[in-house]
Amino acid sequence: NHIIICGYGRNGKQAAKKLLAHKRSFVVIEAKKETVNKHQSDMVPFVHGNANEDEVLMQAGVDRADCLISALPSDSDNVFVVLSARQINKNIRIISRASQETTYGKLKLAGANNVILPDKIGGDHMASLVVVPDLLEFIDNLSIVGESNINIEEIAVEHLYDTSTLKTIRDLDLRKKTGCNVIGYKNEKGEYLINPEAELKLAPNSKVIVLGRPEQIQKLNTLYNIEVE
Amino acid sequence: NHIIICGYGRNGKQAAKKLLAHKRSFVVIEAKKETVNKHQSDMVPFVHGNANEDEVLMQAGVDRADCLISALPSDSDNVFVVLSARQINKNIRIISRASQETTYGKLKLAGANNVILPDKIGGDHMASLVVVPDLLEFIDNLSIVGESNINIEEIAVEHLYDTSTLKTIRDLDLRKKTGCNVIGYKNEKGEYLINPEAELKLAPNSKVIVLGRPEQIQKLNTLYNIEVE
Ligand SMILES: [Ca+2]
Ligand SMILES: [Ca+2]
Repeated sequence: NHIIICGYGRNGKQAAKKLLAHKRSFVVIEAKKETVNKHQSDMVPFVHGNANEDEVLMQAGVDRADCLISALPSDSDNVFVVLSARQINKNIRIISRASQETTYGKLKLAGANNVILPDKIGGDHMASLVVVPDLLEFIDNLSIVGESNINIEEIAVEHLYDTSTLKTIRDLDLRKKTGCNVIGYKNEKGEYLINPEAELKLAPNSKVIVLGRPEQIQKLNTLYNIEVE
Repeated sequence: NHIIICGYGRNGKQAAKKLLAHKRSFVVIEAKKETVNKHQSDMVPFVHGNANEDEVLMQAGVDRADCLISALPSDSDNVFVVLSARQINKNIRIISRASQETTYGKLKLAGANNVILPDKIGGDHMASLVVVPDLLEFIDNLSIVGESNINIEEIAVEHLYDTSTLKTIRDLDLRKKTGCNVIGYKNEKGEYLINPEAELKLAPNSKVIVLGRPEQIQKLNTLYNIEVE
């Protein structure tokens, strides 16, 4: 259940850095021999080759990987890699970079689960610094890189109580029991509600979104026997 | 108190889109005549010219603007614009794009308050989809574009009570009075605490960070006479 990163340019490198911080195992596919030689280490293992070739993807274990991040500079290469990975592995989660907005649809069609446009995210971030600075500062403080920087977790209500008799958020009282704070609710249809009322009844197959410091999240996981993925 | 966007490439365009959604007034400086002709409208006013020239910056009102977003494709152009804007206006908030990591320090030195590296943010985002998906989904649900999508606000405690007698978060009971949920605390030194305990005493010159749906945030602003900037 490892992750494959295709391309060790600026995007790929930053993705690797974040995965490392979260102690997730991954392998990087990179075509440039000098990049491989320069960055290869026990922490950052490489497969030297072109991600466009199925054998190279197989060498990186695409058939049994959890996730593939395609971060190649060329949009057409990303489309090709996404298509190849999807062909080999129906269940793998595929995240791809795109530089042109017109590539978005093609990558989705090729089988990508998520498509990221760095320039769009960058532009959005610049404006967010102006219009929602408090939100950005909050997120910055969540994302302190470290092994246990999970601050927000989505939890199926079935983990929390026997839904044959409906309970409310107040009844659960996660705050007193674990320190965690319920900040969102996703109903059985997947509709998201920010900051639900304490009186909200937790329907079967719904989920609560909790905020907590790492030790609070851990307390919740332990108390309710929730396995961390 | 308007905002100036330099460059209407992918980053600048996305920034404009977000500012529009938040009904903030802005002007775009763009050197390419065809881009100006194609995108100019009542909603998106342009100054045609090179942001590298002081007269063009002045035409866009750099001396009285609140904020300048430099989103030019060339790092050296961004450095030049940041330096010029800072020279003319000591108080303006300057946010700049950079493509090379080595430009970061130069832009800061030139007077930028924030520097954004789109590729870094893109790579980080791709990895975050893997390691903190619940957090990203929460943020996506906060950032629904619309006029009143402020969900997180930082509020000086002096707005909330007379700090000559210390109160706790529980004493304030913002939840019952407004629906808002205290999700963070910034003490008098600016240190940030995620999900503070209800027993925390709110020191003078500290701030609480609240989460709420737009109507809850508005209720809080009204109840405590907080002026929205
Ligand atoms: Ca999770
Ligand atoms: Ca604010």
